[in-house]
Amino acid sequence: MNNKAIGIFDSGIGGLTVYKALKEKMPDEKMIYLGDTARLPYGSKSAETIIKFSEDNAFFLLDRDVKIIVVACNSSSSYAVPNLQDKLDIPVLGVIEPGAEAAVKWSKGCIGVIGTTATISSKAYDRAILEKDANANIIAKDCPLFVPLVEEGWLQHPVTRLVIEEYLLPLKEQGIDSLVLGCTHYPVLKNSITDVLGKDIKLIDSAEVVTEKVYSILKSLGWLRQGRSVGVQEDEFYVTDFPERFKKVGEIFLNRKIEKVTAVSI
Amino acid sequence: MNNKAIGIFDSGIGGLTVYKALKEKMPDEKMIYLGDTARLPYGSKSAETIIKFSEDNAFFLLDRDVKIIVVACNSSSSYAVPNLQDKLDIPVLGVIEPGAEAAVKWSKGCIGVIGTTATISSKAYDRAILEKDANANIIAKDCPLFVPLVEEGWLQHPVTRLVIEEYLLPLKEQGIDSLVLGCTHYPVLKNSITDVLGKDIKLIDSAEVVTEKVYSILKSLGWLRQGRSVGVQEDEFYVTDFPERFKKVGEIFLNRKIEKVTAVSI
Repeated sequence: MNNKAIGIFDSGIGGLTVYKALKEKMPDEKMIYLGDTARLPYGSKSAETIIKFSEDNAFFLLDRDVKIIVVACNSSSSYAVPNLQDKLDIPVLGVIEPGAEAAVKWSKGCIGVIGTTATISSKAYDRAILEKDANANIIAKDCPLFVPLVEEGWLQHPVTRLVIEEYLLPLKEQGIDSLVLGCTHYPVLKNSITDVLGKDIKLIDSAEVVTEKVYSILKSLGWLRQGRSVGVQEDEFYVTDFPERFKKVGEIFLNRKIEKVTAVSI
Repeated sequence: MNNKAIGIFDSGIGGLTVYKALKEKMPDEKMIYLGDTARLPYGSKSAETIIKFSEDNAFFLLDRDVKIIVVACNSSSSYAVPNLQDKLDIPVLGVIEPGAEAAVKWSKGCIGVIGTTATISSKAYDRAILEKDANANIIAKDCPLFVPLVEEGWLQHPVTRLVIEEYLLPLKEQGIDSLVLGCTHYPVLKNSITDVLGKDIKLIDSAEVVTEKVYSILKSLGWLRQGRSVGVQEDEFYVTDFPERFKKVGEIFLNRKIEKVTAVSI
């Protein structure tokens, strides 16, 4: 198992924040990333459809012989992970559970949760948090402008600063002590969000928390790769549509070029 | 034919700008609007799929006995209108042709075209304009933040002003004399865009130009409705998903409540 790859899928490009966190923690591991860009967004689709698409994605990665699958998509994490865990023989992890767990562990008072309109309306984080702490105090807010701002690359732009203030200062005023970044795009805005909210509000970055989980699972199974680092160019990136756009926007996420992105149909 | 309704479809909510323009010009007419919110966005889908979805939408409206169909969606207008015109016995109009025609008629120099990333990459407006004037000088720019800004209702917000400046001042500096609003959401931002660009740059609003076309076709066929105005509450609104969201965001477009939005599957 040790030399097999870590598989990651997302409906699009946001999962690259998870890829990046995994790669930083485990540079020796080979990663295979699939973005289902032809069928995004998942957030506006039914649970049934999301489960079906997620299975397609998981089987694509299984065919490439991965040892663990990270579901770096909130909608898939919310609806499809239990089903995948039942069906597959390898470990499957979503981003919602680890995010909720970290929030409950950290917060002493009120937990803020932000995400796309679809994620927030689904109340997936609320449910996951309340399962762990039935008395948790949660304030959820959708931030629909964050994804297009990230994809424009306006990470430190005055517009982005203003939008962050508009969305998040009311949460600060309501006394949140932690903020779950409930969308895989948002970690790219972490510095700008901290500039607005200050350092006393803990940002819960699901990319980071899921990475810790993956590491501890692989370690406990004895499946960590031994030996030399796998160069980032040896990692494999697949999309179901628009590889050029993935390359271009991917640079914003990774701060480096992705040389090769392969279009596949699944 | 006179008493039959005008049918309008869009992949989502943006087509309400077209509905609004039609209603202002022809208050006597009954309108039936369909937003295919379960399957949006169309911009990221293949031509084949867009043609298939557009047919579904058109047949839904035909079943409700409309006399003309307005395709208030740029992707459908670009790919599906000729096919619908072949297949259906009633007139079918898209938003791209009238927009391109108005731009060529008006411009003495350089035509600006703005739209979503999908519309701009498709070069649908470029093609339609060049067909009418092979020497036309076109500057196209995608403005991916405009749709989420409109859907947030931030029409006069300082953020919106800044984004408009960032996107459109370079086009002004490059000397455009007209600007095609190549997305059905954008007419809602017309005042803010004029504030930034000044009144010398003509805004070509496809909702308005397609309305003129519809009026002249119905008039020439003798199909205009005679007699009393049809109240806006008698118009029918259908969506394939999320009627509540359509109601909420619809208010931003129409400046009034939509009392009844019916969810249908097509």
